Parts: sequence; C-alpha cells; structure tokens
Amino acid sequence: MDEFLENLINECRKYTDMGKVATYIPELAKVDPNQLGICVIGTNGKIFRAGQHQNRFTIQSVVKPIMLLLALADNGEEVIRSKVGVEATGKPFDAINMNAGKLESKHVNPMVNMGAIAVASLIKGKDGNERFQRLLEFTRVLAGNPELDINEDVYLSEKRTGNKNRALGYLLKNYGLIEGDVDEVLDTYFKACSIHINCEELARIGYCLCSHGKLWKSDERVFEARYANYVNAILTTCGMYDGSGEFAINVGIPAKSGVGGGIMGVVPTRMGIGIFSPGLDDKGNSYAGIRVLEKFSKEMFLSIF
Amino acid sequence: MDEFLENLINECRKYTDMGKVATYIPELAKVDPNQLGICVIGTNGKIFRAGQHQNRFTIQSVVKPIMLLLALADNGEEVIRSKVGVEATGKPFDAINMNAGKLESKHVNPMVNMGAIAVASLIKGKDGNERFQRLLEFTRVLAGNPELDINEDVYLSEKRTGNKNRALGYLLKNYGLIEGDVDEVLDTYFKACSIHINCEELARIGYCLCSHGKLWKSDERVFEARYANYVNAILTTCGMYDGSGEFAINVGIPAKSGVGGGIMGVVPTRMGIGIFSPGLDDKGNSYAGIRVLEKFSKEMFLSIF
Amino acid sequence: MDEFLENLINECRKYTDMGKVATYIPELAKVDPNQLGICVIGTNGKIFRAGQHQNRFTIQSVVKPIMLLLALADNGEEVIRSKVGVEATGKPFDAINMNAGKLESKHVNPMVNMGAIAVASLIKGKDGNERFQRLLEFTRVLAGNPELDINEDVYLSEKRTGNKNRALGYLLKNYGLIEGDVDEVLDTYFKACSIHINCEELARIGYCLCSHGKLWKSDERVFEARYANYVNAILTTCGMYDGSGEFAINVGIPAKSGVGGGIMGVVPTRMGIGIFSPGLDDKGNSYAGIRVLEKFSKEMFLSIF
Amino acid sequence: MDEFLENLINECRKYTDMGKVATYIPELAKVDPNQLGICVIGTNGKIFRAGQHQNRFTIQSVVKPIMLLLALADNGEEVIRSKVGVEATGKPFDAINMNAGKLESKHVNPMVNMGAIAVASLIKGKDGNERFQRLLEFTRVLAGNPELDINEDVYLSEKRTGNKNRALGYLLKNYGLIEGDVDEVLDTYFKACSIHINCEELARIGYCLCSHGKLWKSDERVFEARYANYVNAILTTCGMYDGSGEFAINVGIPAKSGVGGGIMGVVPTRMGIGIFSPGLDDKGNSYAGIRVLEKFSKEMFLSIF
Repeated sequence: MDEFLENLINECRKYTDMGKVATYIPELAKVDPNQLGICVIGTNGKIFRAGQHQNRFTIQSVVKPIMLLLALADNGEEVIRSKVGVEATGKPFDAINMNAGKLESKHVNPMVNMGAIAVASLIKGKDGNERFQRLLEFTRVLAGNPELDINEDVYLSEKRTGNKNRALGYLLKNYGLIEGDVDEVLDTYFKACSIHINCEELARIGYCLCSHGKLWKSDERVFEARYANYVNAILTTCGMYDGSGEFAINVGIPAKSGVGGGIMGVVPTRMGIGIFSPGLDDKGNSYAGIRVLEKFSKEMFLSIF
Repeated sequence: MDEFLENLINECRKYTDMGKVATYIPELAKVDPNQLGICVIGTNGKIFRAGQHQNRFTIQSVVKPIMLLLALADNGEEVIRSKVGVEATGKPFDAINMNAGKLESKHVNPMVNMGAIAVASLIKGKDGNERFQRLLEFTRVLAGNPELDINEDVYLSEKRTGNKNRALGYLLKNYGLIEGDVDEVLDTYFKACSIHINCEELARIGYCLCSHGKLWKSDERVFEARYANYVNAILTTCGMYDGSGEFAINVGIPAKSGVGGGIMGVVPTRMGIGIFSPGLDDKGNSYAGIRVLEKFSKEMFLSIF
Repeated sequence: MDEFLENLINECRKYTDMGKVATYIPELAKVDPNQLGICVIGTNGKIFRAGQHQNRFTIQSVVKPIMLLLALADNGEEVIRSKVGVEATGKPFDAINMNAGKLESKHVNPMVNMGAIAVASLIKGKDGNERFQRLLEFTRVLAGNPELDINEDVYLSEKRTGNKNRALGYLLKNYGLIEGDVDEVLDTYFKACSIHINCEELARIGYCLCSHGKLWKSDERVFEARYANYVNAILTTCGMYDGSGEFAINVGIPAKSGVGGGIMGVVPTRMGIGIFSPGLDDKGNSYAGIRVLEKFSKEMFLSIF
Repeated sequence: MDEFLENLINECRKYTDMGKVATYIPELAKVDPNQLGICVIGTNGKIFRAGQHQNRFTIQSVVKPIMLLLALADNGEEVIRSKVGVEATGKPFDAINMNAGKLESKHVNPMVNMGAIAVASLIKGKDGNERFQRLLEFTRVLAGNPELDINEDVYLSEKRTGNKNRALGYLLKNYGLIEGDVDEVLDTYFKACSIHINCEELARIGYCLCSHGKLWKSDERVFEARYANYVNAILTTCGMYDGSGEFAINVGIPAKSGVGGGIMGVVPTRMGIGIFSPGLDDKGNSYAGIRVLEKFSKEMFLSIF
C-alpha cells in the first residue's frame, strides 16, 4: 500500500503545475506549488504515507467541519439547525433577501464563509480568545498533536486583508445571527483558518469522522456518532465549493478542501485521508489533490455511491 | 422484517394527514391523501412489503433519474456532462444570466425540471413518440413489469396546464440546448411524468441503482456500473428538492421524490426502496414518506455517511 | 435649423461604423450600417429633416410605448397598473420568484419584453389578428401614414427564431398574466415589432406624446393627456434599456430605442424626434443615434432636468 | 398661494396617521408622527410656507444628492462615473457578483446606501472629520443657514446600530472602491445622515438644483450647471427608492426622500420644494409627503413629462 501510494503520488506530480497558488492573501502567494503529499489511516489500524506528507500548510476552510463539530458539541443539533442551514444552494450574499429585510438563515451553510463565521460565534467561550483556544485544543485532540498552532504570518495577513469576511460578519450581526463583538468573532475565524497542519494530522481528523467520533488507536470517543453523520452529509453536498457535485460523481467521498491546498477525505467506516498540494483549480480546490483522490477512490472502490 | 415494516407504517400513518396533496395539476388534486405503502428489496434476494404497497400513483419526478440513466446509456458520460450540469445550486430560472445572454449550462441540473427537459431531448429516437416508447420500455425492464403504462388523465391534465415547463422548453431551445421540436420534447416529458407505478416497481428500480446496474433476481446487467455512481451521487445532492441537505443528514440515503407522492430510495450495495404517500411537505416531498424513510434508516443503520 | 441638422448628421456620420447591426434575427443582420437620418417636429408647427430620413426600418421596441398607449386607452390606468409594473428594476427573469411560486408583477415593466408581451394581450380584440389590426391602425393614425405596414420578412424571421419570447409568453400564461392563446399573443407582438417605419413617422408619434395626446397639424386629440405623462415617465426611467440612467444624464429626453436602429425622442411641450441608424452599442441602442440626440439636446438645451 | 398650501396641508393631514415612523434606529422611533409641513421657493423670488414647516428632522437619505454634488465638484464628472453608477437597477447586495469575484460598479447607484458610502469616501479631506466638515459647510451654504448641525442623539444611535452599512463599507473596501479607513468613511456617512434640517432649508437646497447651481436671492453660483442635470436625472430614476417609477408617473418631479420623513423636490427652472412628515409608506417614503407633492404637482401642472 505504501508503494501503491508512492506510485500514485509520482503519477500525479505532473498536475502540481496545473493549479495556481491562492493569491488573495499575500502570505499564501509565497508558497511553493511543487508539493504533493498524502496520508491514509484505516479503521484496520494501519497508516500509510507518501510524498511530502510532512510539509505544513494552513488549514483554511478544512477547519470548517471541525468548528461545526465543536459547535454541535457545545450547543446540540437543534440550536445549530436553527441558526445555520444545511442546504447546498447558499452563496453568501445570495442568502440575503434585502427586500424582505430578513436573512433566510437556512441558506447560510456552515461550509461557506458566512455560515462558518456564524458557527465560530456559537463556540462557547467568555471571549474570542477563549473560543479560539477551545477550538485549537479540540483540533489538537482530533489531530493527535498537542503542539499544533497557528501560522502567525498567515493569520496577520488574513486579518489585514479580510474585508469581505468583515462585511459578512457585520451582515450576520445586523440580522442577529452572531452574539457579541464582530471583530472578536472574526479574529477567532482568522486564527482558525491559520492553523498550521500536515497530511497525517488531516488524516487523523478525517479518521475521527469516518469512525463516527473515535480517536485513532485509543478508540476514545471525542464526539457523538450522529454528529459525524451530520458533518459527513454536509461535506458530501458542499465540501468542495462549486465543484461538490462533480466531485461526488468522480470521487464519491465526503471531503473538505481549503485554499491552503489541503483536502481532508472521509470514507465512512473505512478510512481518513489527508492530502496536500497548494496549486488550486478555478473553484479553489487543490488541483493535484483532487486527481490523487479520484484515482485512489477508483482503484480502491471507495465511492459511497 | 415484514412485521417491522408493518409496525413502521402503522406508526407513521398519522403523518399522512400532515401533508398536502399536489394541486398544481387538477388530476393530482383528486388523490386520496390517506395512503401509505412501502416495499424493500435487498441484495440478499429478499423482498418485503407493507401498507398500501399495491396502489398505483404517477411517477412524476422520480422518472428523472431513469431518464438520466437512459440518456447516459444513449450518449455516454461526456456528452451528458457537456449539456447538463451536476451541481446542486441551480434553480431553473436562476440558471439564466440574461445580461450575459447565455445560459450557464453547468447549473441546469438533471433533477430540476429544466435540466430534465434537456435530458429528455437527449434520449435517442426519430421523434418524440419513439423517444418516449424507448423510455417506457427501459422503465418496464427496470421495474420488472412489461405492462407498465401512463395514466392518460394525468398526462392530459399535465399537458393542458404545463405552461411553466413550456417556458423552460423554449428557453432551452433559445440557448441551443435542445434539438428538434420543443412541443415534442415536452410531450415526451409530460408522458414520462405520468407513468403509473407502485411501490414494488419503484423498489425494483432502486435495486438496479443499488446493485450498480443489475436487475433483481436475474442479475442481468442493464446499464454500466459507473452510471449508478453518477446517478446516486446526484440523488444525494439534489434528489429531494430544497430539502436535500436536511434529508442527507437525517436519512443519509440517495433518494428521489415526486409530487405524485412516491420516493425511490437507494442504499448502495444493500437495497432498493419504494415508498408512497401522496401528502406533500412544503418542499414537495412526501410528508409521511420521509418520516418512514428516516425511521427505517435509523433503525437499520442505512446512512451512507 | 435644416442646416444645423444637416451639419449634425455629417458630424456624427463617423459613428455609424462604431456600432454593430443586430444579428439575433437573420433578417436584421442584412441591414446596411451606414445609414443615419433625423426628423424633428416642433409644437411651433415646423418640421425639419436631414440625412437618410426617408429610409425605412423595423420599429422593434419603439412599438412598446405605442402598445402601452393603446392598452391604457382600452383598459384605463387602474387595470394596466394592476397587471404590469412601472419600476425600472425588472429584468424579465429576475421578476420571477420561483420559490414563492408567484410572479412579482410590479417588476414586469412594459418597456422590457416580458411586460410588453403582457401589454400586447391587454389590447382589445376578438383574436390576435384583430388585436394587431387595431394596433396597426392606431400606429398609422399617430404616424400620419395610412399605408404603414409590417416588413413581412422580418416578421417571419422573428417568428421563426423568437424562442426566448415564447418562453416569456408561457411564463406569463403560467402566472395568469395573459388571457387567451400564447401563440396568438406572440404573433401580435412579433408583427408589432416588424412595423416598417421611417424617421418622420417616428417624429410624428413622438410629437403626439410631447403634445400630450394631439396629432401634428390637426391638433386632434387621439389619447388622454395623462397617458402621455404615464408613458413619458416610463420612457425616462426605462426607455433605453440598461443605458437609461446614463442617457437621462447625458441627453435628458424621454426616448425609446429599438434594435432596428430607431430612436423616438419626446421633448414634453416642445418637440417630437425620430432618428435612425442601425449600428447598435452593447446595450442595444443606436450608437450614432444616441450621439446625434446628445449633441442636439445640448445645443438646444432640451434636457428636462 | 400661502392659502392654497395651507388648504393642501389641511386636506392631507389625515394621511399622517397612515404611515409608520422609521424604527430601524431607536432615536427615529421616538418621533411624533402627526407632523406635516411644506415650503416652496420659486425662481420668481417668492417663498411660501404652510403647516409645521419650522420643525426640524434628520436629513437622512436626502443628504445623498448633496454628497454627490460635492463629490462631483471635488473630483469632476469622469471620476465619479468611473467609481459609482447611474442606473436604477442596483439593489445594494444584488450588485455583487461573488462568483465572478468582482463588483459590477455600474450598479452601485449613489442614491442607494452602498453607492452613497462610496461617494462619501470621494469627498476631499485629510481625514473623516475634515470630509464631514466640508460637507456640512457646503450644506449650510446651500440651505442658507450657517448654524445647521447634526442631531447628536440620532448620530450616535445610527452609529451604534449601523451594522448593515458597516457590511457595505467593508465590501466596498474589499473591491477597492473606498480609500482609507472604513470606519472613518462610515462615520462621515452617519454624521451626514444626522444633519438636522427643516422644510425651508430643504426647499433652498432644492432651489439650487432647480436653478442649475445658483443660491436663492443672491444668485451666486455654487456649483456647475451640468451637475444639476446630473443629479436631477438620477433623482428622477432612483430618488424615491423602489417607488421611483410610480412617483415619476404620479408626480413627475425629481425628488429625494429620507427615512426621517423629509422630501426635497426639484422642479427644473421653476421651484425648490421641502416637505416633512415622518410617517413612512412600505417603501420608506413619507406617506403624507408624497400625497402633498402629488396633489401640488397636479394642481400646478409641475410634471416634467
């Protein structure tokens, strides 16, 4: 299997040139595009790695399902459903019916920025800092690495340039969908996106979702099984931005991508997957990463459909 | 299992009053709402039935995945992808960017009316009649009933009142997305929606999708395995109208509903399911039918997530 | 003044090359773009002409205010207001809230195709033919030419290719906004757009609007004064498609353009103007025609603002 | 004429009960709805007043054309056109095409909040304070009252609750349409909306627009004539929110309303009008104020159409 993954990575390395590194924040634009790595952790207890699986990158949107898990644990399913939606249709600004003067909250999906900012405000904590520390701690547990931390440069770069997210935050505030100070909520969100991670840690987090809430090796339960169903379902319908439908057909694995180049894959009951390659396609998903995952899924018959 | 299903139906019969029978075409408004039936066919070769599983109803939108399967078989995956989309976002009319003067075809999903009309025009046949006869024949094979036919009254009612679908047809024509005569394509579509079916036949069709292309009992292959992946993935992201995200979390089974009250469920590699209850929720899905499917999925651990 | 107009035309002739003849229907694409003409009729009783003012062209959307006038005369202001809107915001398909399942009719402005088709169905007549004959007769009276008729080739070309308008017609039908047969209403509309006209006739029609309902020379009243206010107001906010705001600032004259290259201008209480040049800008307005009107307005201080 | 206006006010006083005082900021909700006043200043040098014409209210959106005039004077027409649009179609958030990742700036009209915030940032000044002081000074000149100032309570209330405007500000910042600090620009805008004014002062400002840039009595030119054309044209197409088309037909006068209950009317070459009544219709325009203006326009034949 290690050899199989090594071949897969070698075969797909040619795709690293075809994507484009994210440029919307200056720090991300500096990343070397020629990186590709994978880690797979199975429910049979085995772990496999290939390529630059040790390289670190910022987690970006892959933190969204982790935030959602913690918000579910903190508030319960009913509260989360009443505040953020689950349908695939919602683009952030389409979600707002200005004529009617009210937000159709069911459209603000936790996998798009606006919904994720609302989710950030639902994580318990006496202030933005405590909220983020609890999220970081939870991510460390899932990832099995107590040293996990943010990339300070990316965080500051994101904070300086995040005016669109600021706009979303004030809209949510205007519609009564976030409590407390907008800037504190955004700070939690910017920090969350800047967590510095690697393939193995993503695979471990994916493992917790595939095992319906248990940590790798220790089998310790860290969240309720039904929350894994909740998150895996949303990943399938909206995890890969506007490419989610295409990805469901071609790959058929619940997954979440981030503009840092990471993809976390979840094969329910079978395995967690972490992939990294920073060149992105025009939808914001890792170009080489998707190719790796597609070939892997087809060779191993992993599609849930 | 028969007893289990019987209890499930009895328990959910109270929900038949809570939905509303479709009224947008006069014939559908005449249906008795107090009907509820289910049929389940497993890949272990067993079949189970409960409630009014023998009652007939019109297939309506549940015909969309069947049309898509036949269009895939007739044209191959590439052609279908180039003409109809797979993302969940597309509401029919939102799909049209009148300013830009061109249709964003990737948004015209085959599970919404506009995409389904485009799919109807992709079924091979020298005219509308031959196209429909081939679809009917294919449906008969999947459903295991060579007598299957349309409900003439519903068909005529649909034809008389289908001005919104006519509008969609002319839009598609305007954008070069359907060949030939619009009225013929619509006639094929109206007839397709009027196929008169029952729970067992829906379960058999669902079985073909769960078994990746094989008929129940005979194991005869009737379409390519990868087309089942294609269709099951789309069902998961868009099969239940605007309630698809909610349904994925609560039920977790690829499924398609129709305003006739039918739901076809597909549990990949395990079972096909047919359910019928004509009272609809505000999204157009069978009210009692969804409750039955949710309880069934939870009791039997059927969620694919 | 004749010399002034002659100079104006000569000065603006260079702009005839800068627009593009309409190509959406084959017949329009055949027109020679190097034509430019103007006719001005003042309430002081004088008439002035320059350039190719005698050349004929199809009236296209300039017929929309005429249809609106006749529909107002036939039904009264209340009925028209209840069925078609007056705000500038409505793009045809944006007007439709498919989720809510009802048309927001206030958005279907009579200067966009969808609203104009609704207006066509409000003209009295026992069938489509009588409706069109009454409109043609009314246009002949306003234009002072009893011989006015349609361009048969353009009409047939329009009819063959008008699938977008057909889509709009069926949508209106679906929402109960047109009575009777959709095809008949569309036939009336296609014929109306094909009326073959020249600059002087457009200027005479504009004169009737500037004089609040009286014919040139005879002073005979042909419609109520307040209907001129109604139409002139709508022309100002929506007469020049998406360029209406720009045009209001630069020119400041109620006007209606058509893709045939005609522009009808109305300077309330002062003059009616007819201009023709078939090359269009990217908003569908006559490129050279707008430049002529802008210079004319600025030299003569015609802006109503 | 004084008597005529007095009768008009008495006749329309019954409408003051039919509107609803704005409640979106707490301070505005405290206003007594039973107020109605008017002031008219003619180019013949006469001034007429009736009702509670001396009562003060916050200028709110009526400041938008004043801000636009100053921005035009500070930057010239070309710069303004390149940064803010003039078409009537733009609702704030509809203006944003998130998929394309760029703002269609032509849609951000200076009479809607988003465009007005962009305009505020175009007023010259070394910081937000200087920008506001220059605007206040300019307004004092137009209004003929060197004591004119803001209502501090409304300003603070607006600042505390203005999250939607904050969202708009950050969006503009994100798209590079405002320079400098978002909070400073918003502060200028919130202060501008809080200017405390009365009917006579509004009529004087309207007079400057009707006279194409000259002050009442002194005839001193305070802005270029063509900027009056620019502003009057935009008022006609978008001055009365979503009721602009209806208002153009019924009243036919360039005008701007604010949620404080004020309406400024401009009859080009003839008169400036100030009206105040705080009860609003469902579009945000003064309910009684519109009725007064409609009757006044019809009795005096003031429609520009």
